Amino acid sequence: MSFNGKDEAVYSGLSHLECSRCATRHDAWVPQNLCSCGGPLLARYDLDAVRAAVTPADIARRPPTMWRYGELLPVSSRHAVVTLGEPMTPLLPLPSLGRDMGLPRLLVKDEAALPTGSFKARGAAVGVSRAAELGVTAIGMPTNGNAGASWSAYAARAGMRSLVVMPVDAPQICRAECALAGAELYLVDGLISDAGRIARSAVRRRGWFEAATMREPYRVEGKKTMALEIVEQLGWRLPDVIVYPTGGGVGLVGIAKALAELAVLGWVSGPSPRLVAVQSSGCAPIVRAFAAGAAEAAPWEGAHTVAFGLTVPSTIGDRLVLDAVRRSGGTALAVDDSATVAEQARCLRRDGVLPCPEGAAALAAVRVLRAEGWLDAQEQVVVLNTGSALKYQHTLLPVEAPLLAADEEIT
Amino acid sequence: MSFNGKDEAVYSGLSHLECSRCATRHDAWVPQNLCSCGGPLLARYDLDAVRAAVTPADIARRPPTMWRYGELLPVSSRHAVVTLGEPMTPLLPLPSLGRDMGLPRLLVKDEAALPTGSFKARGAAVGVSRAAELGVTAIGMPTNGNAGASWSAYAARAGMRSLVVMPVDAPQICRAECALAGAELYLVDGLISDAGRIARSAVRRRGWFEAATMREPYRVEGKKTMALEIVEQLGWRLPDVIVYPTGGGVGLVGIAKALAELAVLGWVSGPSPRLVAVQSSGCAPIVRAFAAGAAEAAPWEGAHTVAFGLTVPSTIGDRLVLDAVRRSGGTALAVDDSATVAEQARCLRRDGVLPCPEGAAALAAVRVLRAEGWLDAQEQVVVLNTGSALKYQHTLLPVEAPLLAADEEIT
Repeated sequence: MSFNGKDEAVYSGLSHLECSRCATRHDAWVPQNLCSCGGPLLARYDLDAVRAAVTPADIARRPPTMWRYGELLPVSSRHAVVTLGEPMTPLLPLPSLGRDMGLPRLLVKDEAALPTGSFKARGAAVGVSRAAELGVTAIGMPTNGNAGASWSAYAARAGMRSLVVMPVDAPQICRAECALAGAELYLVDGLISDAGRIARSAVRRRGWFEAATMREPYRVEGKKTMALEIVEQLGWRLPDVIVYPTGGGVGLVGIAKALAELAVLGWVSGPSPRLVAVQSSGCAPIVRAFAAGAAEAAPWEGAHTVAFGLTVPSTIGDRLVLDAVRRSGGTALAVDDSATVAEQARCLRRDGVLPCPEGAAALAAVRVLRAEGWLDAQEQVVVLNTGSALKYQHTLLPVEAPLLAADEEIT
Repeated sequence: MSFNGKDEAVYSGLSHLECSRCATRHDAWVPQNLCSCGGPLLARYDLDAVRAAVTPADIARRPPTMWRYGELLPVSSRHAVVTLGEPMTPLLPLPSLGRDMGLPRLLVKDEAALPTGSFKARGAAVGVSRAAELGVTAIGMPTNGNAGASWSAYAARAGMRSLVVMPVDAPQICRAECALAGAELYLVDGLISDAGRIARSAVRRRGWFEAATMREPYRVEGKKTMALEIVEQLGWRLPDVIVYPTGGGVGLVGIAKALAELAVLGWVSGPSPRLVAVQSSGCAPIVRAFAAGAAEAAPWEGAHTVAFGLTVPSTIGDRLVLDAVRRSGGTALAVDDSATVAEQARCLRRDGVLPCPEGAAALAAVRVLRAEGWLDAQEQVVVLNTGSALKYQHTLLPVEAPLLAADEEIT
């Protein structure tokens, strides 16, 4: 997207892919999924070259989209970018809710502003752009709703075929977003883990590219830009804590990866933020594993929560998520749906921001952490609101209000 | 909102209010509604002072929100701004839909990225900010849904009381957005014109401030920023045509006002864009008046359309809308709901953008205008997509998709 008449070329500093388990190096110039050892692959950059090529002051002059961090993204040039016009999302104080919690410096990163209404657009924009430039013409994936909506839309933009498998309990509107975008849509009477098996089997038989979370190496690079934007919006300073509602957890992995890259670049200094993984008490595999000191998370049985994006009973990124939280000195905790729904309304009432249930769960967790003293009153805490509340209307409806006749008066 | 570490003070060039009918001058430093002659008031600026104080190059260095145009907004300083973090919205090419219509330079200005999911946030941000700095503590207004959701949220942010009256047929989610924000919400078994009478009567009895469209002079100033962003995003060049889905029409009035101010400032040159007012064939008072050469629009009887924001049978801004369209050399036309719904899906399928029904109506109108030859193939046409499709889920649902068991395969 051109902006302010500028049309600056930005090149990627991508070097190769590296297995997050066994460190085997893989070619980044062919489509890749997992390592032969089963580990997810991560993109590695020539950060010395990036440091020599660009400065934060250069970035400040670029268009206000996630693509301003192009050197730290895997897409080879801006001409290969598939975009729906991703604006930098607001980093907004929540002064009244923060006072109520005893955290006056509470901030929300409001991802509802992104195309398709959620942070999933970041991963889809990078994932589809990269797949397209590597020659992929058809993708398949499971979703809890928002990711399918995003990937379908970006695939449509790229002229790419898509196949999406979605739990039947996912928000109905996400079905429409996928199907109307031209995706081949299947519903499954099960959870995202079931959808994942079905999608994987289908794409293998067809020879399509599997774009599932962490099985595709570039989605995490898109999610990384959440942290890049937060740090830039704070004037290239680090917050004390970042709180992330954790389903598959790829966003948390991306945030940790971005913070590590920024430290190597020397663009930030000081202690890295503690990372907090928030789940629902109805589906908390990461929280359980964190508490047990385990390196991996066993699948959660009978998963159910109003924050549907958190209904992820198992994730292939479990080791990376747990490692990121622990290395940062962070924590993991689960909240009840009742606390989530209450926090959703409280945030709107106090500060004018209506978070999605996942974001509200993260806010509810912050309240708990402050009450327990894990958070200090003066800490700067950034909560990710991962998307628009409009996809989850059942958590907000019905609403009681007086019904007047057309010629009636308010008494 | 601070951004990139900058924290620049921006001052308003506001001079006074002027009646759009009788040109009487009014004090801008007390809360105002209509002129005693019944005409809507418009904000006037000391444009010579603005020209001396700021340049487009200065603006380019400011944070990417509508507040970068602060000299052309009525809020006295950035410290008086009530914000939910309004990002500049994408101005995005629609290459595939454009080719399909024979308009390769078709662009959409996608307002879904704004807080509360619609362009109404622009008017509410400026209206609430200005009301708050003038000492208003309670507002009341009618709405077709989105405006109520926006004003309720910004009022909550400002700690201001709000009263909203909404047709019972408006999207149900908007009820929740208002009520959960703390607004006093009433439903009416009628149209927005009925809601307007009820709200007006209530605020007068209570001594609250009436914030209805065009009866409050600053909402149009917020809407003005749509045109300011379009022009800046095009490199301070004017498009050939701007197409606007027209309910109350305040956005079109704001766009015309912005273009006129930019011309006086000398920041743009060349022919001003032709402005197109799009309505639904189920509610087309402006289109009927335009065709008849009338200066005012008679109320539409039996208004009904799937694009609920266009269900505005009469508007106090009718003269201003008709005048803006005619002076620009533009036109007004209505489209059927069937064309709107078809264009909505087509836009998503072809270019990955899911417009709201109002935005889809505008796209459908562009298709008609191109087919009729009113639009030339080489013209640059900007269509306003005024909000998120997620508020109007009934236009998208239900979706048919195969349902699989958890252990089934795609055949």
